[in-house]
Amino acid sequence: MKLLASAFATLCFSAMVDADQGMSRPDPKPSPDVLEATPQLYNYTTELLFGEVWKREELAPRDRSLITLAALVSSGQSAQLSGHIKLGLDNGVKPSEISALITHLAFYSGWPNAMSAAIVARQIFTERQIPADQITSPAKEPLTLEPVAEAKRRALVEANVSAVAPGLAHYTNDVLFADLWRQADLTPRDRSLITVAALIAQGQAAQLPFHLNRAMDNGLTRTQAAEVVTHLAFYVGWPKAMSAVPVLKDVFDARDKQV
Amino acid sequence: MKLLASAFATLCFSAMVDADQGMSRPDPKPSPDVLEATPQLYNYTTELLFGEVWKREELAPRDRSLITLAALVSSGQSAQLSGHIKLGLDNGVKPSEISALITHLAFYSGWPNAMSAAIVARQIFTERQIPADQITSPAKEPLTLEPVAEAKRRALVEANVSAVAPGLAHYTNDVLFADLWRQADLTPRDRSLITVAALIAQGQAAQLPFHLNRAMDNGLTRTQAAEVVTHLAFYVGWPKAMSAVPVLKDVFDARDKQV
Amino acid sequence: MKLLASAFATLCFSAMVDADQGMSRPDPKPSPDVLEATPQLYNYTTELLFGEVWKREELAPRDRSLITLAALVSSGQSAQLSGHIKLGLDNGVKPSEISALITHLAFYSGWPNAMSAAIVARQIFTERQIPADQITSPAKEPLTLEPVAEAKRRALVEANVSAVAPGLAHYTNDVLFADLWRQADLTPRDRSLITVAALIAQGQAAQLPFHLNRAMDNGLTRTQAAEVVTHLAFYVGWPKAMSAVPVLKDVFDARDKQV
Repeated sequence: MKLLASAFATLCFSAMVDADQGMSRPDPKPSPDVLEATPQLYNYTTELLFGEVWKREELAPRDRSLITLAALVSSGQSAQLSGHIKLGLDNGVKPSEISALITHLAFYSGWPNAMSAAIVARQIFTERQIPADQITSPAKEPLTLEPVAEAKRRALVEANVSAVAPGLAHYTNDVLFADLWRQADLTPRDRSLITVAALIAQGQAAQLPFHLNRAMDNGLTRTQAAEVVTHLAFYVGWPKAMSAVPVLKDVFDARDKQV
Repeated sequence: MKLLASAFATLCFSAMVDADQGMSRPDPKPSPDVLEATPQLYNYTTELLFGEVWKREELAPRDRSLITLAALVSSGQSAQLSGHIKLGLDNGVKPSEISALITHLAFYSGWPNAMSAAIVARQIFTERQIPADQITSPAKEPLTLEPVAEAKRRALVEANVSAVAPGLAHYTNDVLFADLWRQADLTPRDRSLITVAALIAQGQAAQLPFHLNRAMDNGLTRTQAAEVVTHLAFYVGWPKAMSAVPVLKDVFDARDKQV
Repeated sequence: MKLLASAFATLCFSAMVDADQGMSRPDPKPSPDVLEATPQLYNYTTELLFGEVWKREELAPRDRSLITLAALVSSGQSAQLSGHIKLGLDNGVKPSEISALITHLAFYSGWPNAMSAAIVARQIFTERQIPADQITSPAKEPLTLEPVAEAKRRALVEANVSAVAPGLAHYTNDVLFADLWRQADLTPRDRSLITVAALIAQGQAAQLPFHLNRAMDNGLTRTQAAEVVTHLAFYVGWPKAMSAVPVLKDVFDARDKQV
């Protein structure tokens, strides 16, 4: 199993133990394999990525975990997911939120990625003996989407999608937005945040303006949006992060003009 | 091995047994891991995806299996492939067609995806004791491509590719179209269908108009083409499906003008 | 573990043994599983891919290994990586270069791909008993980047990225180019070559003109650049290769005008 085992698996587990004892957690460290095969990468990981990037104040560790998990799930990186689910739990992401993130990304990156992620999550939940009532949040009243924005969104789908692909328009309006986006197990801001991360991870710029605006309407600041792109450069690679920059710029500029 | 085992593996096997007994098959169900880690995703899978989407009349179950397999192979989802090869066989895709699909996608999504898929296919073929003569279709006369369309296609490659990358032009003309597309182990319509699915799965819009037109020339209807996109939204994620919609619209509009 | 084992693993190992005895190496062959499940793909692999494409004179076997490894790492194909690391070593890629390639692609395709690749590399290095001093090249003086081109590049980042995402601009200038690109464990030409391959493999056309020009400034010829695309068609699929052709054409044309 070594071939596909997570390079982070060991370290994050030991980090958790320290957290349980209430001590400040040491930074995660890659496995000894990484040190031996790619010593320079090991140094970048400990000194730059965990030693510096994860500690930048522009984005909270919990947000960094949310977007890292979204990037890993939506690009099918299940081999590296295990350590980051543990780190996410340590950073304050609730088990029910991890479950909701995976469910959300079934729609935003395809069922196969979500199925693989669910199996990894199940392992960690079992290992940490997380009770079922922390995984399923108790049934809450569905959220109400902001009616003017929602009417505008629906009109766009009807104008652009209904005539060409009526089934897709139907599921977009009546499942994605009337059901998934209204579930209360993620805040609208967090749901937007992971959607933006998933779009950047998949190199899908076309829907990024809509979801970035939605994220900012839901409370994401410009500084945080820029830091999402900076953080993701390390998790999805420089090219996809760089391609997101002009989209951010256009969205920021358009919002300036609206004021 | 749990980490990367298919979430569908168990259920599809039990489904097969029922098929062997000539009874109507129950819908596939995800593994208990999915139920425990992501109960909401489990519900969407059983009620929405298998309970409704797979049963929509716009596209036959065999076609849905073909495009699902094409999406899984071409996006490197070998962890989820096993269950869908079984489901494909149950839905009437022949072993020789699965073999031809994998071979075709070596060219359309790269050798590594095809190699990984071949190993999974071999496991299922062995498990189901499929004899070798059902995997290799007996040598048939190669298909003849429609000469006018083929001359036009070749002229485009010569105009756009030959001067820049002569090797790529050579293999495109003399292997892809003079050999692969002429093999009789997939009908031209099915070969086009899986090519379209692979392009959408990889987010590659540039070649989609050519192959969508080819698929429609080979018999795919507009309703079916739209349903391909709708079905694939669930298997490759909403963003890639939504990005295919304007391409579909343009192709439909251009074909209207031709008439 | 069969599910995700490399289809090339066996053959490349046997190829190595022959190389150790100073005999001309036989072509790699896929595993028997590929022969049984997809006999036509097996034939294409032995006759076309290894029998012909890898032997074309437009690009040396060592270059072909570099771009194949870059394509596999940057598209997360860790299941097929093992055989190609062995083949790369046989083709003259040094262990320290493989280590540097993985480190470089952490930045150009994201940490998760590099972490998974490091674990595979560690296995092969152990298996071949490669000593640590061949993996870490002895500390060398950092390379000096050509100052005019570097000033121009930095100005572009400051104009386009700094105002929108200052953190990303900082890491681009002060880590990527001031540190990673200056490391002497890969020649600038090889570092450019694997960057170009990673961009094509990820379908990221936006940064391709910059890096293709840089590769050609670093010594890559037009014939070699075209052959990179031709070779990669087989490893990342025809669609991504075809999408790179107009970018190549534009870069070639622009360089003609500069003269």
